[in-house]
Formats: sequence, C-alpha cells, structure tokens
Amino acid sequence: MPRIGLPMKVAVISIGDELMYGETVDSNFTVIAGRLYDAGLPVAVHLTVGDDREEIARALVYLAREHEVIIATGGLGPTSDDLTAAAAAEASGCPLQLSGAALEHIRQVAGRWGAEVPPANEKQALVPAGATLIDNPDGTACGFIVPLGRCRSIFLPGVPREMARMLSASVLPLLAPMAGGKTYLTKVFMVFGPSEAELETLLASLDSADSGVSVAYCVAFPGIQVKLRAFGESEPPVVSRLESAARLVRDILGDRIVAEDGESLDTVIAGLLRSRGETLSLAESCTGGLLAERITDLAGCSAYFLEGVVSYANAAKERLLGVSPLLLAERGAVSADVAIAMAEGSRRSSGSDHALAVTGIAGPDGGTPEKPVGTVFIAVADRDGCTATRHQFTGDRHAIRSMTTFTALNLLRLRLMKGKTERHP
Amino acid sequence: MPRIGLPMKVAVISIGDELMYGETVDSNFTVIAGRLYDAGLPVAVHLTVGDDREEIARALVYLAREHEVIIATGGLGPTSDDLTAAAAAEASGCPLQLSGAALEHIRQVAGRWGAEVPPANEKQALVPAGATLIDNPDGTACGFIVPLGRCRSIFLPGVPREMARMLSASVLPLLAPMAGGKTYLTKVFMVFGPSEAELETLLASLDSADSGVSVAYCVAFPGIQVKLRAFGESEPPVVSRLESAARLVRDILGDRIVAEDGESLDTVIAGLLRSRGETLSLAESCTGGLLAERITDLAGCSAYFLEGVVSYANAAKERLLGVSPLLLAERGAVSADVAIAMAEGSRRSSGSDHALAVTGIAGPDGGTPEKPVGTVFIAVADRDGCTATRHQFTGDRHAIRSMTTFTALNLLRLRLMKGKTERHP
Repeated sequence: MPRIGLPMKVAVISIGDELMYGETVDSNFTVIAGRLYDAGLPVAVHLTVGDDREEIARALVYLAREHEVIIATGGLGPTSDDLTAAAAAEASGCPLQLSGAALEHIRQVAGRWGAEVPPANEKQALVPAGATLIDNPDGTACGFIVPLGRCRSIFLPGVPREMARMLSASVLPLLAPMAGGKTYLTKVFMVFGPSEAELETLLASLDSADSGVSVAYCVAFPGIQVKLRAFGESEPPVVSRLESAARLVRDILGDRIVAEDGESLDTVIAGLLRSRGETLSLAESCTGGLLAERITDLAGCSAYFLEGVVSYANAAKERLLGVSPLLLAERGAVSADVAIAMAEGSRRSSGSDHALAVTGIAGPDGGTPEKPVGTVFIAVADRDGCTATRHQFTGDRHAIRSMTTFTALNLLRLRLMKGKTERHP
Repeated sequence: MPRIGLPMKVAVISIGDELMYGETVDSNFTVIAGRLYDAGLPVAVHLTVGDDREEIARALVYLAREHEVIIATGGLGPTSDDLTAAAAAEASGCPLQLSGAALEHIRQVAGRWGAEVPPANEKQALVPAGATLIDNPDGTACGFIVPLGRCRSIFLPGVPREMARMLSASVLPLLAPMAGGKTYLTKVFMVFGPSEAELETLLASLDSADSGVSVAYCVAFPGIQVKLRAFGESEPPVVSRLESAARLVRDILGDRIVAEDGESLDTVIAGLLRSRGETLSLAESCTGGLLAERITDLAGCSAYFLEGVVSYANAAKERLLGVSPLLLAERGAVSADVAIAMAEGSRRSSGSDHALAVTGIAGPDGGTPEKPVGTVFIAVADRDGCTATRHQFTGDRHAIRSMTTFTALNLLRLRLMKGKTERHP
C-alpha cells in the first residue's frame, strides 16, 4: 500500500488541562488534521500537553527541531490557567509585550457584546515581542505567529468555532503555497452491513500495491467507512486511479453503500425525498426524537418533513397516531402490529407520502424473555402499503437507540431507492 | 495555582490514519486520560501518529525513554493497515509470533457471532514474542503488554467500546498500585450565563495559591465548566479544602449553576420531575426533536415523560397541538403567542403537569428583518399559567438549535426549582 509522502512537516499541539484530564474531547485536532490533509499538507505528528508553561515550551522546542510548521491551539484565554503565550515567549526567547493592536481588537469585540472589557481580557493582548497577529473575528483572543528557529509556530485559541474560522481564513492561505502542488485525493464510502473483516475479504482485489490506491477501514458506528486514498504529482492520473477503484467498490458493495464522500445517510434520504417531491412523517417510541432530530438537522427540511410524534405513553400512541387500545393490549406496545399501526396512523393523519415508525425496548429495564432489551420493530409505510421488521440490537441504551435510528433511516433509504428503480427501470 | 504532581509518568499514544487525516475524533484518549486521572495517574503527554510501522515504532522508543508506562490504542484490527503489533515488535526487538491463546480467543469470539473466522482475523493472533495478553471480551483483538526497557507498553484496540472495557477491567487494576496512595479530587460545576472572563472575576477570591485548590474554566458550549481541583497526601484535608471552595462557588453563582459533578441539565430536570411526581410533555418546532431526544436519553424517563410533538408544518401545530389557524396567520408561527398556544395545547391534550414549547428560525433561510435567523420563542406551561420569552441566538443552524435546546431546558429547570422553593420555603 503506498504511503502518502509529507511535502512539509507539520506538527500540531493541543494545549489544555481539560484534554489531559479527559474532560474534553479534542475536536480541534480533528478539524486541523482534516483541513490540512485536504490542502495537501498532512499532519506528521500530534502532541497533547496540559496548561503548564514549561511543558508547553518544551513541546514547542522539541517539535520545532524537526518540523517546518507547528500549529498550536488552546491556552490563549483570559484566565490565569491560560499560559500558552507565556510558553511561546519562553520557547522563542521573545518576551511578552502588550500589543496595541490586540488590545484594540479586544475592545472592539467586547464592545460588540455591549460590555466593558473585563481586566482579565486585557491579558489576551500580551503576545511575544515581534509576533505577527492573526485576526479572530469571533472572539477576544487574537492568534499569533512566532518563529522558532526555522519553524513557524502558529498559535490559535482553543474555542472550536473561533479556531476553525481562523484556520480557514488566515492559516491555510498562508500555508497553501508550501503544499508543492501535489495532489491528495480521498474517496469515502459509508457502508452498513458487513463487518470490517468481511469488507477486507470482499474488497481484497482492490488492495494491491500496483493499484496506486490505498484502502482503509474505519468503524463509524454503526457503519464502517471504506476510504480510498490516492496521491501523486499530477492530478489527472490520481483522479483516474481513484475513479476506477471507486467503480469497483460500487460494483462489489451495491446498496450496502449508504452514502459517498460529503453525503450521509441523512442527506441521501433528503435528496431522494426532494427529487421525488414527496413528504415524510415520523412516529417514534424508543428513539424518542432521534429520528426527527436527524431529519430536521438539515437546512431546508421543511420542504419534505411534515411532523414527528414521540409517543412514549400508550395514550399518546392512541390519541396522536390512532393506534387502537385493543391492539396495544393484545400485542403490546413493542410489536410488529403496533409499529405498522403507528406508521399508518402517522401517514394517514399527517397526509405524508412516507411514514417511518419505531417501537422497541432501549433498556436497561423493560425487557422480557420474549422481548429482551434491544427488541425493536421498525415499520415503513407508503402508498403501496406498510412493512414491519423485527430487530434484536445489543449494547447499552445509547447504542440501541443509535442502532435503531440508523437502521430505521437505512430501511427508509432502501424503500425510497426501490421506488425510484421501479419507476425508472 | 498549585500544579498537580505526577507520581508515575504515563504517556498515551493514539494510532490511526483516520485520526491524522481528521476523519475521526479521538475519544479514546479522552476516556483513557479521564480514568487515569481519577485513578491518581494523570497522563503526562499524549502523541498521535498514523498507521505507519516506522513512525509508531519511533514514537514508542522515544516515549519509553522518559515514561514508566505507555498506553497505546489503535491499529490492532484485522486489516492490512493495522500495523501496531508489527511496530511493537520492532520497537521491543521481540519478533511477531502466532499466539495460540490469541487464536483460540479469536475463534471463540467469532464463533459467538455464528461465523467462521475470516483469514484476515487470524492476523490478530500475531503478537510480539513474550508479550502478556489482555483479554478483550467484546472483540477479536486481544490487547498485550510488551516491555520496552524499563517502560511497560500496553497495547489496546481502537474500537472505543472494547478499549474502554479492557482499560477498566485489566489495565487500571494493573496500574493502580503505582499511584502511590495520593488523593486527586475534582469538583465540576456546569454554569450557564456568565462568560469565562466574568466567571474569573466573580470567582477571583477563590483562585489564590494558599487555598490549595486550583480553578479551571472550560467552555462546554453553551455553558462553561468551572473545575475545582485539589491534590494531597491524605484524603481528609483534600476533601475539606474542596468542600469549602465548593460552598463559596455555590454562594457566588447561585442558580447560574446548572448541575454539579456527574449531574447534567438533563438529569437535574429528571430528578426534579421525579421528586415532585410530575409529568412533562414537549412541543417542538425549530429544535426538531432535540428536546425529546435529550429527555428520553435517560433510562426510566417514561416515569415522567409522556409525549413530544415535532410540529414542523403549520398543519401539525393545528392538528396535534390545537393552535388556532387564525393565530398562526396573524402572529406567524414564530411568535410568543404561538409558543404559548403550543405549550398550553401540549399540556391540555397530553394531560401533563409541565409543557415546554419552542418555535423559532434555525436558519440559514427563513429570517426576516423583524425576526432574523436565530429568533426563538420558548414557552413553559404549568398549572399556574404559561410564560413565553423571546431569544436572539447567533451562529449556524447547529449552534442555534443547540442553544435553543439548552436554554429551553434551563428555563424548565428554573421553573421547576422555583416551584420547589415556593412549596418548601
């Protein structure tokens, strides 16, 4: 499998006690790594350190020796545990100085909030002497660039929104010329059904050294991402290698591919509903709003989403969805018949073209020998009728709810795709 | 501010191209760091590297020099891009050998899934010669321990569920005796309202070196976590220092404290509803199921949660919540009057004690000069009446929906607490 070369050695440092104490997930590194990779500047190494001036300075000095660029995030806030600027000063030998421009920036941002500048924020105007400032349109902490020998070290705040905007607006344009015109391309398939080992067996023909395309698998619960990566000096052959590998994957995996690249299960469903000009309604029990939340997460969903009902109590299933009390008593709320009655009730009362309904036992309580925790019934209704399927999921409440949501949306996707094929054979 | 000492130097390595390419957030490090910290073994440094045998080996050799323990996760899977065992062999000088016990484990786990062992999985039985195996009850990849000079390096799979269970069951008991009996305690407050700088000013009296308690602030959008940390040789004085600092924080911040320690806004609301024996119903527009999802995320919520309606279309607001078409036409769906009608309609039809309703414009489209994107009305209804508040949130669709959800649940919390105080003065 070809390894991707490193045209410029970029190191990333994440700074914060909240990271070292396991209190916050480091989403900043993920954002930085992804955007740099897309820009042809993959990260060589990543280091996490706490809010300790000496440790930060030591990490900077160590990484500056072997890398051309360091991007550091975190520890630029107004509070006393924010020590990154002081560490940058120590590592670079440039003492902290009050920057008039940074102070003016702080006053402007604080003024926008209609507030006086708290004394604590003025500390954010102290940067190593000679540093170049990086604008932060969304917050008081300016970023800055300090040379560490031949390495440029770039400091950004740790607030994810601020960091991400500064990275795109200021840092990537600065680094782009250093990518050396190489082409890095990735093609991602989200797959649902086969295990990682089964996928490797299915796609074995793809993973040969001479294809010039590497294949990687990444569990993205409850699916698996299959990633094809190609790299080269000039763009056309890289594109063509990647495209023929992608065609092979599509032939082998068929509709087990849920989505490709920027798409997700949710956006694929949205696209199918939009292209058909059809509407959707939802009836949820154990997923408790997760289905509706996923559908409404996309802007413009009001074009196809009418309504959802979270019918936790049986009374809600009766009143809001017209499920018969007799059916609930005879079959139980967790049954194929009730799932069908929920989907048909939702479709009938909302006037939607498609209805998706879910009823099950997410646990940890409520299981019986016949219907243990993880038993879920999913029903999909459209003008051609309604079908329900029984599923047995494992794991904790969170896993069962996630699996149910993904499986239900995938069943809706398959139904929408089937309709599509039938009408345009 | 006192720094917390390091009784044993622990380094963590996260391994995976998906991390270096920004495709996956490294939640494993967060879990490892948190559990080690709680065990009195804070992580000294964390390194992330890609699926590259040489790079992994180099990182192991480098960290083994200065640390007593290395915990590495990732790259133990069955596929060809999983190279961690080979790197461990290289770094330790112990060649890979087929472990009979690991192979037997793989056969047992695969047999549980009712499957033949795919040839790819047998690769997972290759571990460095002399390695100690760590049981993985949930997957085919055993973990293992290899000595690197005086450093013990511990290898765990990257699948989060498997890693977390092995860490608790096997790794922490192994390392616990090395913590040296020191006491590390943390007290966390989730605060909503004041900015980070305002909090630092409000709590300035707390952050003095002689209190023996350090204060840290961590943005946990849309709230801020205030963390008190204390450390010492014997437990009673550490507990007492932390408790008096916590009392001071409670006095200063009052009901701006949303939750403490293991609690969250959601569990606090659940506790208030449970203790009052009262029920809740929801009516959502722009949050599209997020409120219901948060409420139903907690096991046992059926004791107090009756139903939720995601009334996206106006027809749904009319039919499911009894909002008058005239009101919708005159005031618009995004208005205080409609929010109140939604809450009262939800309470009336479900028979709940409390109803929470939300209507707003999450964007990016749908804004007007009078009601720009981010305009949200939140109504809380109970037997004493219904009040609606207008809010103007900023940011993208995701941020507006999150802010709305948090603010609405917080208004419910304050209403429930007020009722509590009034009844038990």
